[in-house]
Amino acid sequence: MQKHPEHQAPVGAGVAAVLRDDTGAIAETFVEAVRAAIAAADSDALRAMCADRHEADIADLLEMLSQEERPRFIELLGHDFDFAVLTEVDDTIREQVLESLPSAAVAEGVRELDSDDAVYILEDLDDEEQAEILAQMPAFERALLKRSLDYPEDSAGRRMQTDLIAVPPFWTVGRTIDYMREADDLPDEFYEIIVVDPAFKPIGRVALSRLLRAKRPVPIERIMDTTIHTVRADMDQEEAAQLFERYNLVSAAVVDESDRLVGVLTFDDIVDVIQEEAEEDIRGLAGVGDEEISDSVLYTARSRFPWLLINLGTALVAASVIGLFDASIEKMVALAVLMPVVASMGGNAGTQAMTVTVRALATGDLGGYNRRRVFLREMLVGILNGIVFAIFIGIVAAVWFADPQLGGVIAMAMVFNLFCAGLFGFAIPVILDRIGADPAIASSVFLTTVTDVVGFFAFLGLATVLLL
Amino acid sequence: MQKHPEHQAPVGAGVAAVLRDDTGAIAETFVEAVRAAIAAADSDALRAMCADRHEADIADLLEMLSQEERPRFIELLGHDFDFAVLTEVDDTIREQVLESLPSAAVAEGVRELDSDDAVYILEDLDDEEQAEILAQMPAFERALLKRSLDYPEDSAGRRMQTDLIAVPPFWTVGRTIDYMREADDLPDEFYEIIVVDPAFKPIGRVALSRLLRAKRPVPIERIMDTTIHTVRADMDQEEAAQLFERYNLVSAAVVDESDRLVGVLTFDDIVDVIQEEAEEDIRGLAGVGDEEISDSVLYTARSRFPWLLINLGTALVAASVIGLFDASIEKMVALAVLMPVVASMGGNAGTQAMTVTVRALATGDLGGYNRRRVFLREMLVGILNGIVFAIFIGIVAAVWFADPQLGGVIAMAMVFNLFCAGLFGFAIPVILDRIGADPAIASSVFLTTVTDVVGFFAFLGLATVLLL
Repeated sequence: MQKHPEHQAPVGAGVAAVLRDDTGAIAETFVEAVRAAIAAADSDALRAMCADRHEADIADLLEMLSQEERPRFIELLGHDFDFAVLTEVDDTIREQVLESLPSAAVAEGVRELDSDDAVYILEDLDDEEQAEILAQMPAFERALLKRSLDYPEDSAGRRMQTDLIAVPPFWTVGRTIDYMREADDLPDEFYEIIVVDPAFKPIGRVALSRLLRAKRPVPIERIMDTTIHTVRADMDQEEAAQLFERYNLVSAAVVDESDRLVGVLTFDDIVDVIQEEAEEDIRGLAGVGDEEISDSVLYTARSRFPWLLINLGTALVAASVIGLFDASIEKMVALAVLMPVVASMGGNAGTQAMTVTVRALATGDLGGYNRRRVFLREMLVGILNGIVFAIFIGIVAAVWFADPQLGGVIAMAMVFNLFCAGLFGFAIPVILDRIGADPAIASSVFLTTVTDVVGFFAFLGLATVLLL
Repeated sequence: MQKHPEHQAPVGAGVAAVLRDDTGAIAETFVEAVRAAIAAADSDALRAMCADRHEADIADLLEMLSQEERPRFIELLGHDFDFAVLTEVDDTIREQVLESLPSAAVAEGVRELDSDDAVYILEDLDDEEQAEILAQMPAFERALLKRSLDYPEDSAGRRMQTDLIAVPPFWTVGRTIDYMREADDLPDEFYEIIVVDPAFKPIGRVALSRLLRAKRPVPIERIMDTTIHTVRADMDQEEAAQLFERYNLVSAAVVDESDRLVGVLTFDDIVDVIQEEAEEDIRGLAGVGDEEISDSVLYTARSRFPWLLINLGTALVAASVIGLFDASIEKMVALAVLMPVVASMGGNAGTQAMTVTVRALATGDLGGYNRRRVFLREMLVGILNGIVFAIFIGIVAAVWFADPQLGGVIAMAMVFNLFCAGLFGFAIPVILDRIGADPAIASSVFLTTVTDVVGFFAFLGLATVLLL
């Protein structure tokens, strides 16, 4: 996912050259022109419109085409199709496209890519397809890609770039620069060189801006920065992203289990990881799976089904709590009118506490010291807002149904439910995190069950005991 | 927020040198040692422990100290305190610290920073304090900072670095390198140089990795990349972040309204923006304001209050819908037991559609062409899952209350509410976005009001008409 500067010059003229409209989306006129060229199998027209565009632009265009048009588009462009485009499209589209292309074409396209992009494309294929494509590559490239693919999913090893510049500390600035001028398998762009010892262990880094400003005879060890942040290849990409964020890194050396340099992670991969992880939290909290905006109706409905099913279960649990008090409701129908208010306030207050906790866990801000303080804070916030809203709802209920005692009961239920909301809003994600589950995904279900059940039980129970 | 390599060497030995524990949080033993040194006013001990640490480490440490300890810590460290630390702490803490330090100390500390960091620290101060600090700076630095501060909040102009390398196209590689060796007000690290015309308008860029690999006599125009992505200084930082993400930029030239180069944005600022924007969406969806994990109980309770108040209002609207049907509930208490199930399913299905829409808006994936398709998709998904869950809940209700007609009514209400959930889950954020409101913050309120009101009204209304 490096930039390809040589692919950036805009070409063509007239309508077809306007790729994006004012909102930044791909212009419909452009899509229609491309569609027409595909339908006419006019590969010259397609080349004129698309050959020198940036991969991100072609990726957005590809997403606008139909499933049948996409492989035809790629075949018509031929060698002018940059496979890096496939790293920028939705997962579903990438998989469909790769399945519909001949494996020889994929192998050839992938060979041209930086190693991290190649791995990104290969990793989602099934083993058989992967083996078929790898078999068509030269042995050295194949070995490097295989090593990356052997690291666990979502690990730094999968995201790293294996083409890199590593030099010994005794080299001079001049020799390093000459070496870079001659090397031919370098990534498109890089930002620092890594200094290694004879065992190929990283011992320092030199930012290119520093290298450029040093005189040629100066030895590298005189200008290198020895405090380097290395990443283990089997480290989870989220952990690596935290390191990049904390220290504002542009790139970091990746090492294997014996601390030997095996690759480099760069900020652009990490930007994608940060996006993905934040996205995962948002989706998890809302009960949306890994669906993408380009997915079909059926796929989307199916991916949202499990969460709704679980919610149906918890809603029925809450309903059966209400069922326990049907006699009370029959006697006093105001209870039925007011009970959703208690449950809803608990659900919202709990979601606030839970969201803050989930994000603090994700960004590593809940170390032992902070955890106790935040736990206490959430419970106190629950009680405090509980008291304030108890007064509000107490007055509203007392006036609405001309029944001060009903006001008192709903006020008590409100304080209790908002306290529980704070308590469980904090505790549920922390406990899920401890036992190794993803707090973003599972917390909401447990929480709304608790706030509904507690809300209905406290309000209807207190009313039954005190009013009837 | 650039790296300061010269501040990165770890120092000290023994317990106090272990700054972070296994989880990556600041070790409690380290915090205690720092506390003891502050209490004893032992500035030598403090220097030994903290002087050469990375700003991000000192920032995390500062957050662990009490409000009284923080300014004392900074005063005791004196010149060894790097003000870049203040760019890495929570907003509340930064403001407290700046208020408690003498303005001369702040002015001196800020002068040493890269210009983007200086602006980041100054922008939150009130006008008077800002003026007081700026008055103590040399005229040229003051003018540059003032220009940045004049751009709107959250604009690219606020985040840009004004120290940069710009060269004319006819310079050679050698001359450019010599110029960089001599210039003394450069940022700590940079990644590309900008090529400008005589009017100081950017016309190209050269990545340092490309510059390094070119021969000295080559003119810059021969190696420059002419397709550059410039950012207007008054552009919203979120828009700039989308540009960086789309094209994997490491830095971008910032221009004023007459297209003249005024600064440079770098990836590290953008990483912060991406984090902030994702964070804002998550918080907005959950109804949590700009609170931070370090905020007090009172501040947190107050910041969550407005959302809960709005929710109380919408819950009362929903309750009054139930109130319309109190006679029906009195006749058939099963309605009270089942009605939260319909509302809750609608709320969840709507939240799924809304979350996907909000994120698609945030990442610019909802251009005109895609919008109609996604709109249609959300309604169809709503109907499809509505039918499936209508069958489930219909059977459950029919069996539970031995009343097939009740099962039929709740099934109809479920399909209708899940269809509305899809419709409004998509439409509400899109409309809010159109009228310039932040869809992430306001959507949830409107949505749950709709799904509650529709849920209760459809179920209780149908039951009243068909069953009673």
